[in-house]
Amino acid sequence: LRASPFKPASGAGRTVSDIGERGLIDRLGKYFDKPSRKLLIAAPDDDAALWRGDAYTVGTIDTMAEHVDFRLDWPAFDWHLLGRRLISINLSDLAAMGAEPRHALVSLALRGEMPVGDVDRLYAGIVEQARKFGCSISGGDLSATRGPLMLTAAMTGSVTSASEVLRREGAKPGWSIAVTGRLGAAAAGLRLLEKGLKAKTDAERSWVRAQLDPVPRIDAGKALVSAGVRVGGDISDGLIGELQRITHIGGLGASIQVRDLPLARGLLSADWPLAVGESEDFELICVAPASVMRNAQKLLGRHSLSLTVVGVIERRAGIQWHDGDRPVRLKAAGYDHFR
Amino acid sequence: LRASPFKPASGAGRTVSDIGERGLIDRLGKYFDKPSRKLLIAAPDDDAALWRGDAYTVGTIDTMAEHVDFRLDWPAFDWHLLGRRLISINLSDLAAMGAEPRHALVSLALRGEMPVGDVDRLYAGIVEQARKFGCSISGGDLSATRGPLMLTAAMTGSVTSASEVLRREGAKPGWSIAVTGRLGAAAAGLRLLEKGLKAKTDAERSWVRAQLDPVPRIDAGKALVSAGVRVGGDISDGLIGELQRITHIGGLGASIQVRDLPLARGLLSADWPLAVGESEDFELICVAPASVMRNAQKLLGRHSLSLTVVGVIERRAGIQWHDGDRPVRLKAAGYDHFR
Repeated sequence: LRASPFKPASGAGRTVSDIGERGLIDRLGKYFDKPSRKLLIAAPDDDAALWRGDAYTVGTIDTMAEHVDFRLDWPAFDWHLLGRRLISINLSDLAAMGAEPRHALVSLALRGEMPVGDVDRLYAGIVEQARKFGCSISGGDLSATRGPLMLTAAMTGSVTSASEVLRREGAKPGWSIAVTGRLGAAAAGLRLLEKGLKAKTDAERSWVRAQLDPVPRIDAGKALVSAGVRVGGDISDGLIGELQRITHIGGLGASIQVRDLPLARGLLSADWPLAVGESEDFELICVAPASVMRNAQKLLGRHSLSLTVVGVIERRAGIQWHDGDRPVRLKAAGYDHFR
Repeated sequence: LRASPFKPASGAGRTVSDIGERGLIDRLGKYFDKPSRKLLIAAPDDDAALWRGDAYTVGTIDTMAEHVDFRLDWPAFDWHLLGRRLISINLSDLAAMGAEPRHALVSLALRGEMPVGDVDRLYAGIVEQARKFGCSISGGDLSATRGPLMLTAAMTGSVTSASEVLRREGAKPGWSIAVTGRLGAAAAGLRLLEKGLKAKTDAERSWVRAQLDPVPRIDAGKALVSAGVRVGGDISDGLIGELQRITHIGGLGASIQVRDLPLARGLLSADWPLAVGESEDFELICVAPASVMRNAQKLLGRHSLSLTVVGVIERRAGIQWHDGDRPVRLKAAGYDHFR
């Protein structure tokens, strides 16, 4: 992982309880976006933020829970990357709708004994990733906890019209199924982290990066909509889960050619279940007629993004996996937070 | 407290882990608002919600942390009221800006061993309070935790123009300071709850209700703006804290006549520090020239809401307390979550 450019400010030796809620809010105020044409009021100055609205707004909320979504004892743990990831998980939901990011609201439940420098690094990562994608940090909330850290962001985005979005509904039998980018890296990275292993090869480092610092596919989402694609979603909860939701709505199914799955570098063809079952890859899946999909591939190519056809929508319910002509079985179910 | 009208549905004997994340999302889907002219897509169906935007949008986010903001062992604890309160704390931020509620996104971190019936009751309360104030439940997120419950809502509201809002900035020396409703009930209620005492008198019941089921002042916020008031905020973090923020911006101060504070029924005049120091009363404070304030009092009167002048903005920094002609001292500082 690249070294973070962020330098801890003075007061890094003190804890959150040392400076208190007011002190922390004042300290974090510098990270909030300043009033501008887009953001008229930032929330730290007032009870709520005020911004110019859009004709059609997309809204999402996502929480990262310590122990479940991240662990401070991971070998490569970095507050700055954790902040980036909090923004990325919400950006990925906007990407999945084909939306342009606008405003983020951030609520953090922190422990009093946490060093202020760590909160600084966390917030610097939040702001860095939001700015990179043209999203303002408009407001936030701080809570105290003696338990696991809970980091929540809500985000709004803009779409041109109510029909120019990616939705889960609308797939038709015979339509192609495609995915952006490459799959399985995030799951492979998580496996290294959970075992406490340091990444040694370039491939292993790219796996860990895919887990800790994923890149949301905002450009790809917008390009898919521009190309005429209207059915899709993000697969950060696993490809199989998203494919089930997309096909379930119309009582449809899908067949996937596992040889066509674009595996992350360093993964072997036998690793394909890793790529579809549980990997938190921040890629998009989409479904469209073959001609539309070819358009989309050209358009994404201009952004140096790949779009790989991996299967087809079937009239019969259920997902069938094929390795060439041979049917294969996938045992693993999706990851369930509560089980 | 009134009995909740909510009846637990079937499956109340099972826990969150029994039915899993998917089962819980499907189960809670019924509480989400259906696509309508206002809400075009609800998030459980897609990666994010889609709604028609407004010209000027107000956005806020607020978290309730178990042990800090509520306790399951409080004598009058009720999941349904907790859900209502989660929405109310966000509505109060909108009220503090004079905004009209629009859309809510809800993120809950729950424990696997929690009975499904409790989650049902919590969500029914969330939905009930949102609907009562014309706010849609557009989307949400579920996380697992083994620690304290964390309940977060983000909310958008609409205002007519960028200048027709209540802001903390803009107070001038000589302007009147006024508060809506009556003060101190929430703090008195919390004191009973923390001691494990049941409310016995009507007054005590109203204190506990003010703590557990506060009424956000949406109508009052809008009426204040209509009357021409432009400076204000909510005092759910304490009157003194909000007054400090309003006066701090212009390097101003305030003098408060403690005899004029509209104390909640059952409180004695000696209890006034309770009303200004730490009470989570969901009331608004506002600052305006005396003539504008009289207009506002008339307009709020039509909504059966009281607006009581309690002091005046001073050129000299700091807050001075007066009991008639006699200066009095307030020792208590605002509550700090991290201390």
